[in-house]
Amino acid sequence: MESRQARTRDGDFCPVRATLALVGQRWVPRILYELLDGKRRFNDLAATVGGCNSRTLRDRLKTLEEIGLVERHLVATMPPWVEYELTESGRELAQAMLPLAEWGREHMQSEMLSAVEG
Amino acid sequence: MESRQARTRDGDFCPVRATLALVGQRWVPRILYELLDGKRRFNDLAATVGGCNSRTLRDRLKTLEEIGLVERHLVATMPPWVEYELTESGRELAQAMLPLAEWGREHMQSEMLSAVEG
Repeated sequence: MESRQARTRDGDFCPVRATLALVGQRWVPRILYELLDGKRRFNDLAATVGGCNSRTLRDRLKTLEEIGLVERHLVATMPPWVEYELTESGRELAQAMLPLAEWGREHMQSEMLSAVEG
Repeated sequence: MESRQARTRDGDFCPVRATLALVGQRWVPRILYELLDGKRRFNDLAATVGGCNSRTLRDRLKTLEEIGLVERHLVATMPPWVEYELTESGRELAQAMLPLAEWGREHMQSEMLSAVEG
């Protein structure tokens, strides 16, 4: 989503629009949703979030880590592995998205999307 | 938001992603939010949804009407006027967005958005 979408016409920052820009990023809702069940190893997450390649997934997780929604843990076994976990605000965001996702599954049809895109 | 965002990699329709594409459209969340209080005349709505010109607002309302989220009523007084009102599913969508909007107001900061856009 374009950056102007997160700002009002006169350039002010709008937190609600910015949130929509964040969760409108491809894979972000899915990653948050998968992490709602608890911490996950990277490889496990990559297998579950189908269709997203490892590099994209790593980039998304890095961004989510930078903005404080996800924590990355390096587990120093041999071989070591990496786990990801939602922070408190990440968990709150994932939960805040559930009603919207539920509405979509109940009401959204592909014909409706065509009208929006048209 | 681009149409491919509403589809999975193999082109299947995803209702959750489609919902995010819908509410990611500029002015849509604001219009839904304003109509949560009840029916509104077009001119009143145009004055409240600041920064959105009349033509854009009319287009958005038309789309929302086409997909069954908003009802348009022509009030045949002299002079006549037009009112808009949420349908049941439109009201449910507006309410489903409230937790996400609340999360944004509480947690979203402009630095976070820069990271996402980066």
